[in-house]
Amino acid sequence: MSEVLARIDKDLPEAIDRLMGLLRIPSISTDPAWKADCAKAADWLVADLNSIGFKAESRPTPGHPMVVAHGGEGERHILFYGHYDVQPVDPLHLWNRDPFDPAIESTARGDVIRGRGASDDKGQLMTFIEACRAWIQVNGKLPCRITLFLEGEEESGSPSLIPFMKENAAELTSDIALICDTSMVSPGVPSIAGQLRGMLKDEFTLHGPKIDLHSGHYGGPGLNPLREISKIIASFHDDTGRVAVEGFYDGVHEVPAELKRQWEASGFDEADYLNSVGYTKSHGEAGYSCLEQQWARPTLEINGLWGGYQGAGSKTVLPAEAHCKITCRLVGDMDPDDLRVKLRKHVEDRLPIDARVTWDSNLEGSPAAVMNTSRAEFEQARIALSEEWNREAVIVGMGGSIPIAGFFKTVLGMDAMLIGFANDDDAIHSPNEKYDVQSFHKGIRSWARILDRIA
Amino acid sequence: MSEVLARIDKDLPEAIDRLMGLLRIPSISTDPAWKADCAKAADWLVADLNSIGFKAESRPTPGHPMVVAHGGEGERHILFYGHYDVQPVDPLHLWNRDPFDPAIESTARGDVIRGRGASDDKGQLMTFIEACRAWIQVNGKLPCRITLFLEGEEESGSPSLIPFMKENAAELTSDIALICDTSMVSPGVPSIAGQLRGMLKDEFTLHGPKIDLHSGHYGGPGLNPLREISKIIASFHDDTGRVAVEGFYDGVHEVPAELKRQWEASGFDEADYLNSVGYTKSHGEAGYSCLEQQWARPTLEINGLWGGYQGAGSKTVLPAEAHCKITCRLVGDMDPDDLRVKLRKHVEDRLPIDARVTWDSNLEGSPAAVMNTSRAEFEQARIALSEEWNREAVIVGMGGSIPIAGFFKTVLGMDAMLIGFANDDDAIHSPNEKYDVQSFHKGIRSWARILDRIA
Repeated sequence: MSEVLARIDKDLPEAIDRLMGLLRIPSISTDPAWKADCAKAADWLVADLNSIGFKAESRPTPGHPMVVAHGGEGERHILFYGHYDVQPVDPLHLWNRDPFDPAIESTARGDVIRGRGASDDKGQLMTFIEACRAWIQVNGKLPCRITLFLEGEEESGSPSLIPFMKENAAELTSDIALICDTSMVSPGVPSIAGQLRGMLKDEFTLHGPKIDLHSGHYGGPGLNPLREISKIIASFHDDTGRVAVEGFYDGVHEVPAELKRQWEASGFDEADYLNSVGYTKSHGEAGYSCLEQQWARPTLEINGLWGGYQGAGSKTVLPAEAHCKITCRLVGDMDPDDLRVKLRKHVEDRLPIDARVTWDSNLEGSPAAVMNTSRAEFEQARIALSEEWNREAVIVGMGGSIPIAGFFKTVLGMDAMLIGFANDDDAIHSPNEKYDVQSFHKGIRSWARILDRIA
Repeated sequence: MSEVLARIDKDLPEAIDRLMGLLRIPSISTDPAWKADCAKAADWLVADLNSIGFKAESRPTPGHPMVVAHGGEGERHILFYGHYDVQPVDPLHLWNRDPFDPAIESTARGDVIRGRGASDDKGQLMTFIEACRAWIQVNGKLPCRITLFLEGEEESGSPSLIPFMKENAAELTSDIALICDTSMVSPGVPSIAGQLRGMLKDEFTLHGPKIDLHSGHYGGPGLNPLREISKIIASFHDDTGRVAVEGFYDGVHEVPAELKRQWEASGFDEADYLNSVGYTKSHGEAGYSCLEQQWARPTLEINGLWGGYQGAGSKTVLPAEAHCKITCRLVGDMDPDDLRVKLRKHVEDRLPIDARVTWDSNLEGSPAAVMNTSRAEFEQARIALSEEWNREAVIVGMGGSIPIAGFFKTVLGMDAMLIGFANDDDAIHSPNEKYDVQSFHKGIRSWARILDRIA
């Protein structure tokens, strides 16, 4: 083991160079304009994996390709999942550099790798690949049979994922799935995800007059879609921050007292978590701690809102349309399909005369996921992580949604274990995304230790 | 007179060709990207006016140039005002043709000239120039001294207008100002504006977190500027459609019963006015007629609203900022400067902890204007219009804002008379703007008749 760790330390500069190469490919999956770059990122991974002895392929899908690679031998079969696609980069003017021209930057908290995807998820998935590389270089082979399964549609709802998993079930099914797409509860505190929130995405357009109208001619008698959509959005929450959509909380359960105690002892620094982004307090649902609001309570958030004139100067218009993008984070047994009906009813019940709404039909949902933390691998990983980080590893909740964790269970009957090395200040999905060099380095070392224990 | 009218009829095809030439110049004044085209439109007008005997010049300003032209002789001095700049064209995909490739189109309501600026205000200002052209061609000279004053910043708040009027007061001051930038109360009903609403423009950005946040990490505890700006916009009006900003109605007066009777008899077709744009009812302030809501009641409208992700697909972000463009229409003695303070206070009083607001400091306001309809020219114009249109001309209110009317009074001490030939379905400020060929043709004839009577 110590040889593998030494090899990882020695090889770190080259490992960072490799990651830079992957980060330079603008593999934004949600916008069709970047389709070719997604394929390019897949090909880059295939070439790198083949170079260290995996049998890797880029497999076509109706959307972006899946990378599937097989290596090692034996009864024991472990699958690793990550995604090579990234979020859009706008607003571009808030970046301190070209998002796809990554670089090492020194910060008060140490050196970081700056660039879109550095943390989510290219940097994280490379921690596992680099661990495999070192293992093979030192031992000549992998500790067990390992399959890598790298997706290119995670940031755009994974439309091809379930069909691909079903078609390739025999090849992908293994003893357990390892996923590296999560963060540490606090810097330096190794964390294993015990539960994840689900997600419901929806989008609507509120239509008013047939055409954009002059606010001098129709301002007064005219219905203004921007005012109407604002009223509807304002109606989504009550004054306590609780979602006001009827039946929204069906299937939501309170956090057991024991788990709440574990979370409170997990080292989560609420003040730092809030202050680092400019908040002096938690703005969520009254009666719940910041951690519960983030990990165990559902949300209804507006992610995009637009209509009318946005250019320089002024335009005296009542626009014909207003648009709104919504995501809900789901917990417990909330059913995304049922919730979509309730959400849409809430909006449609509030439409005034002469307004109508149309819904985007291409947006998906996924339920919350609770991990099977009683499996031996969780305790083995906890020990390995505690050794690497000289700090007791913790099993925490996660506010994000990683539908794949649930799909491994529902589609392939496999449990999943999510371990990630990101930090809350990585600005994933935001301008100036970064990944700490420490996360990358100790992340690689952590996977090597975990493989050693669970192989 | 009959010779002049015959000449106008005979010359109509050439007059339309000339208008097309002006419409092909994309003189959008609010967006700096089109600055050169605004200058080009001014030069086009200078060349055309010089060709018929005016002494015309394009005069530089800190913004877009002013066109000033002098013609004719005598004691009697009339000034004509129009503007050669146009509104932006977005949303471009809703146009049935290139906005700056104008054409004659046949419609159920007769032939129209389709293109940005066809009605507002290039088509309207050319009705007066064509009337002058015919008059000169028939009589060898103009009926009196005429000064044309054509602005290029009307659609962007006229920043250079007042300084220019002050610097050139001696040259511009005349007996009365004629303005052609208004519409007819109903198709075929010649209309003179008795009053116009004023305007207050403002724009703010609501700032929340320091950076865009991941809705998985911060959805729940995080303050979302899109939700907060929606709450603020929803708070601008009460359930009866009345503006809820404290003190908003200071200086607003009820319409005298006699004037209300005149308006109701003016031929305004409420059902057609509403149905033509897709409304089945009037959505304005309860307790007021559609005409009052449009002509005599103040408004607070949202003209632009945006924040977060607007691209294809979805982005799970809590954005750092949300933006809002506002215009208020003012009536009676409402003071734009005082109202701006009240409007901003309303917003700032509703900001939650951890949110702040910044205001655009470059947006102007102008009070409402009431015309001096007792002047002889109003009766002379009423008779001339009634003769041309075979329908009693009416003195009406106008929902739009034409600050110049007030400025002629406050800066130069002149009364103004606003007569226009646009129709409510001209879609000015909207996709597929048009000007009826009948408006253009009878508009030219109307000005010839009016000049004959008031010269």
